[in-house]
Parts: sequence; structure tokens; C-alpha cells
Amino acid sequence: MIHPTTARVLAAELPGHVGETVELSGWLHRRRALKSVTFLVLRDRSGLAQVVAPAAAANLPEETVLRIRGTVTANPQAPNGVELTSPAVEVLSSLAEAPPFSLFRPTVEAALPVVLDGAPVTLRHPRLSAPHRISAASVAGFRATLDGLGFTEIHTPKVVSSATESGAEVFALDWFGRPAYLAQSPQFFKQAMVGVFERVYETGPVFRAEPHDTARHLAQYTSLDAELGFIADHREVMAVLREVLAGMVASVAARAASSVELLEVRLPEVPAEIPQLHFAEAMRMLGVDEPDLSPAHERWLSAWALREHGSEFLFVVGYPMRKRPFYTHPEPGRPEYSNSFDLLFRGLELVTGGQRLHRHEDYLAALAARGEPVGPYAGYLRSFAHGMPPHGGFALGLERWTARLTGADNVRRTALFPRDVHRLTP
Amino acid sequence: MIHPTTARVLAAELPGHVGETVELSGWLHRRRALKSVTFLVLRDRSGLAQVVAPAAAANLPEETVLRIRGTVTANPQAPNGVELTSPAVEVLSSLAEAPPFSLFRPTVEAALPVVLDGAPVTLRHPRLSAPHRISAASVAGFRATLDGLGFTEIHTPKVVSSATESGAEVFALDWFGRPAYLAQSPQFFKQAMVGVFERVYETGPVFRAEPHDTARHLAQYTSLDAELGFIADHREVMAVLREVLAGMVASVAARAASSVELLEVRLPEVPAEIPQLHFAEAMRMLGVDEPDLSPAHERWLSAWALREHGSEFLFVVGYPMRKRPFYTHPEPGRPEYSNSFDLLFRGLELVTGGQRLHRHEDYLAALAARGEPVGPYAGYLRSFAHGMPPHGGFALGLERWTARLTGADNVRRTALFPRDVHRLTP
Repeated sequence: MIHPTTARVLAAELPGHVGETVELSGWLHRRRALKSVTFLVLRDRSGLAQVVAPAAAANLPEETVLRIRGTVTANPQAPNGVELTSPAVEVLSSLAEAPPFSLFRPTVEAALPVVLDGAPVTLRHPRLSAPHRISAASVAGFRATLDGLGFTEIHTPKVVSSATESGAEVFALDWFGRPAYLAQSPQFFKQAMVGVFERVYETGPVFRAEPHDTARHLAQYTSLDAELGFIADHREVMAVLREVLAGMVASVAARAASSVELLEVRLPEVPAEIPQLHFAEAMRMLGVDEPDLSPAHERWLSAWALREHGSEFLFVVGYPMRKRPFYTHPEPGRPEYSNSFDLLFRGLELVTGGQRLHRHEDYLAALAARGEPVGPYAGYLRSFAHGMPPHGGFALGLERWTARLTGADNVRRTALFPRDVHRLTP
Repeated sequence: MIHPTTARVLAAELPGHVGETVELSGWLHRRRALKSVTFLVLRDRSGLAQVVAPAAAANLPEETVLRIRGTVTANPQAPNGVELTSPAVEVLSSLAEAPPFSLFRPTVEAALPVVLDGAPVTLRHPRLSAPHRISAASVAGFRATLDGLGFTEIHTPKVVSSATESGAEVFALDWFGRPAYLAQSPQFFKQAMVGVFERVYETGPVFRAEPHDTARHLAQYTSLDAELGFIADHREVMAVLREVLAGMVASVAARAASSVELLEVRLPEVPAEIPQLHFAEAMRMLGVDEPDLSPAHERWLSAWALREHGSEFLFVVGYPMRKRPFYTHPEPGRPEYSNSFDLLFRGLELVTGGQRLHRHEDYLAALAARGEPVGPYAGYLRSFAHGMPPHGGFALGLERWTARLTGADNVRRTALFPRDVHRLTP
């Protein structure tokens, strides 16, 4: 038993302790048995450390949880230029089962279902945990940017009484004997809270029961939502989004540097002014007449923005009103178009946002024009009956962002425990 | 129409602009019509500002959304020592309906259901929004403290395939034709992620279908969860929790000062070492023999800690194993007790936490001892089969924390849109 009062040192801190006796803890990442000596590579949250052990240590299986006390010794051949010598090795936890594949190999050959089914252990692979570290850093950047701009964080209900927000399908549940639904977005709540805090954000789960089985859809994902009042129009929302994107990229660079390096992520430059294109102009350039952009169109427009403006981001503004929800603010002078936008990033729609209606009478007219009854929206409309400023906002799908950033082939690689039409475990 | 390029100034910034012409935007908080002049009090996210307007402005109802351009004039009698004179007033949005009560009165006499039913407008009352600003600052302090201690933020599923975590009742839903349940806590997921990141936290919604209709239960609340590996025992978890509490209090003081002042919140001191009492000793002091603490017991113990130790916080450690979940780590040498704790704050249980089992064989034995089948826990047990370090963690209910801090008589005052056995709207 190692004396418990020795303070633990992390693998990445070893170079600062040469000549000292220290204690490392972590998982046995790899062992390499030579004739007279065994090299143990220990993995902790900071990285890897090499331990030079007696040959007898060669019988420990990888992933055994160890506490190792030893002397920090300089060795230019070792990772970080140091290794632990003369170690006393204590097993904190043994294995009942080997991982589905070797976690120490630099690349992962296992198929996606194997990775996802074994998430509690497969995510220990440094290449598989790295996207999640980048994701955490991204959210921190989102919040820090908005905190600096006077936003207030909110927490809104994930269970609602009616399924009215969008055409998407919803999950139904039984709420103490009453029908209820999982919230598809915090849209109505965040708008209402503009009336209280002016500027709000939420980072939380949303639920979509669409039976899409594609590489970019999840049935639960983390939505980064913001909404702000007293805007002139959607361009102020876009300006805030630009700051948020820059803050997210900067936070990833600062807080997840080793993950960025490991995955060889090329972080995008966020231009001071992200180029923008009106939807009508995009249609003209694409030579099409549909009221929507296909994935192929998005890729083409993204390539155009990179070619013409050197930007990996592109705003497409002014989507047709008939393709947007009823609360969307029309474009002044061209009411068939809207004061709304999508942000394309590396060929994919990443963010949707825009200016919303803010006058009570405009909401009543918009619902009437679409032939929708007012009843189901009574709670929502209440905010507007009491005076709401011009406002707008956006929603960014965290998993999709991380997938684009890391070049993941499937958005499921950026959710710890993805939920989709087939997958409800682990 | 006011020229749109005038940059908006916030009410709290006015004293820095004396003599200048500026533009304010906000809600008409109050109007007071005198014979020859009308005082308009404008409310924005920073506070209140007084505007001296012509008598004609007296016909605007409160809560009208206004943009006002005028000259910032020193007046020692006015709030903050300044007021806006010679104003040009533009109505951005009119009212269709008056609020259920006057939002400008200093106190709120309305009953709780009136407040909750009208949340989109009633929360505009400064006394009713203040708890939510304190809540946002608290969460920021929680995250900042844990970020500084090397924790990684995670996002886990809110829909799970089996209802196994606790005895509490769950909400059932239909997941693409399969039975599923809303997650009661991220417990299993955060433990699994200790195997990946060592130290993790999550701030997200949890769901309890318990039909309690009390002042301290919500069916959805925001759980602040943390879990950390490579601990000696539960005392390291308590030490991290102590840092978290201090960080939350400091963040509230720094980021929500005006709300603290408005509600006359007395912020607690977090002692360098929070006093602790073993459960067995607490029972002895209380002269009872039950295996649980009643609310009256919690109040008595809290009063004792304040009297004897000058602390508003008290750890009760070593709860009996039979009152704790199967994954709880027993107390070495006294296996009828556990390495777990509750934190009492101002008379109420605020946090539950402890050390968990970490060896696969201990989980199998614990389930067998309780007569529970292994099958439903197969996914959970997988982490432990692959080697997990000694670990533990805690969960803190955000709404309950804010309620205790602000002295709210009902936890529903600290959720923007509370959900309970009766309430599913707004």
C-alpha cells in the first residue's frame, strides 16, 4: 500500500519534477515487455507517462487502474523527456473484461456501432474522447462570449403541453395522466424571456422525433440558443453570432489544444465580417427555382464563399417566408422573403436564426394567414400582448458544430451517448 | 422615427453621459403625471432611468416598449442622480393587455399561481426576476470552479431505456415505438465518464415523477452534477464541493450584486472547513432511532451547526447503507454505514453525494445482496468491467439552492416555468 498522503502528480506535470519521488494514477494504456524490463505507459486526464518497471509487471492487462510511485528520471527518448523509474505499482482496480479493441493503437479501426455500443470504455481512446473535449471547450466559449455581451443564462422546460413549434414530429409522454411532449427547442421560452432579461441564452437538450437515419441527425442533441431584444433587424443577430463563433474557436484553441493537435483539426478563421448572400441571389447563382437549399446546394455555396471570399462561413439571408416558421419577421419591402438566415460552415447548415415578429397583432395576422388556430399558442402569445421589443436569435447544434470542426464522418461521434431512431442505449 | 444609428445606452450607464444626447430603450416601468410634466420611468436590463416628458406622454400605459432619445441631465433627486430631458419618445410596441398586477410596485402581493400563470410578463417585476439572475450567477460559479479544477463538461441522454436508478417514479414515453423513460439523474453516465475524463460535470434538467405537491419539489429541475476519480474517499468529494459552494457564492456576489441588494440576500460564508457530523452521532444527539432524517431533524441539526460552529452549512456523513442506492461505497470497518453525505444549508438538505463502488465484483455483490437482477444494469456495469478508479461525486439542485439563498417560500419561485404534478404550462 502506497502511503496515501503523497500528492498525486499528473502525467503532463512530470517534466517539472525530475529527481523527485512522485505518485501517478491512471489506466495502464500500454505495456511493452522486453527481456529484462517492462515499459508501462500510464494514461491519465492530462496525457501519457512512461514507467520503467520490472519484468514481473508484464502480466497486468491494459486498462488496469494503477497507482504508481517512483522517481522522475530524465530520458530524452521517453515521451516528454521523462520517465518514472524504480516504481512501486499498486492495482486500484482490475479488469473483468477486455475492451472491444485495443485502446492504445493510434487509430481506431472499429466500426461505428462497436464504438457506440461500448462508449463507456471505447471513449477512453484519446482520438475518441478528443471531440468531446473540443465540444466542452466550444460551449465554454459560447457562454463566455454571451456573458460578456450582457446575456443571462436561462433553464426552460423540456416538457410542454402542446406540440406546436414546428412541423417536426415530437415525442409524446404521459405527464401525471395528461398528454405532454418533449420540447423540440426552447424557442417560445427564450423569446418570452427577452421580455424579462432582454438577452438570454440556453445550452440544453432538445428532442426531435424525426425518423431520419442519416449521418447528421440525432433525436436528442444539445442546442446552443441565444435570443436578444432591441435589435434593428436580423443583422444585429448575425453580428452577435459572429462574435460567438469567434469566441468558440478561440476557446477551443485555448482549452482543447492537445485535442486539436491530436485530431489535426484546422481551426477556421472567423472573418470580421462573414460574407452573406441573399437567398434570391443564391437561387440565381445556382440556376434553380426551388424554395429550399439541398445539401448539394449548401456545399456549392460554401465552396463559392471560400473561393470568392476566403471564408469557411457563409450567411444565406432572406429565406422565403413560406419555408420559415410563422413567427419569422418578413423582409421590409419584399414580404415573400424573411429577415432570417442560415449560417453555412464547411458545406453544411450549422445555425438557423433571424428576426422574429414582436407585435401582438402581427402574430394574430401571421397565424390567421396560415390558417392556424390561436388557441394552442395562447401561452406563447401572452408575452407579445404585454409589449415585446424587436428581437431575434439563433440556434446552433453543438454536435453538428463539433462534427464539422473535427471532420467527423458522423455526428454520432460527437455525442457521448447518441440517441436516434434505433439507438436508446447505452 | 429616431435615427437608427444612435447607439443605445443602458439606464445604468447614464451617469457617465451627462450633457450628451443619448438613446434609451426599454419598457415603460411607471409613469407619474403631474400638472405640467410627466415622469416616465424606463426599465431595461440594467435597471431604471427617469425621463422628464411633456404632459402628453401621460397616456402611455405601463409596459409599452419605448425608444427615447434625450439629453442626460444631472438631478440629485433623480435615481442615480441623472434623468433624461427634452425627450423624443418612439413607441416600439404597444400593449394588447395589461399585466395581471402593477409591475412597478416595490412588492408583489399577487398569489403564487397568478405569478406562475403569467410568467412571461410577471417575471418582468424586478423582485421576481432577481432570483433567476442569482441562479444564473450561481451556475456560472459552479462551472468556473470545476473548470479550474480540471473538470470536463459533459452532455448526457435525458431519455433512457430502463428505469433503474432510484426508487423514484419515472415518466414513461414512446421512443419510436419502444418504451423509454426520462432520466432521473445523469448518475450512471457521469460515473462512466469518470473512466474517460476523470473529472466531469453536467448542468442539465432531470425529471422526477413523484407526485409530491410540496413547496420544495419540482418534476423537472436543474441538477448540478459533478463526479471525480482517483479519490481516497468521500472526503475529497466534500472538499471539492466546498470549493464549488465558495465559487458559487463569490460568483453571485460579483455577477448578481444588484439582485442580491434588491432582495436583501445575506450571502453565506463558506467555512474553509465545513463542519461535519456522523449520521450515528446525529441520531444520538437527536435522541432518535430512525434510519433517516426528517425535515425537522434537518432544521435542528442546521441550527446546531450555526450555534456550535457558526456555519450555515453542515455535512452529515455516513448515512446508513440501507437508505442509500446500491452503488454507494460502505464505510470501512462499519459496513452498515456508508461513505456518503448530505449537505444541509439553512435547515434543508441541498446536496447529496458520496463515494461510489468502483470494482466490478463489488457491484455484482451489491446487486445480489439487494436481490436485484444484473440484466437491467448491464450497460452501467460495463464501465466497471473495464477498470474504474475509486470515485465519487455529488448533485446539487439549482432551484433549491436559489430558494434557500433568496429565502423564497416556494421552490417554484426559482424556476422560470416550473413543472409539477399540476403544472405543465405556460
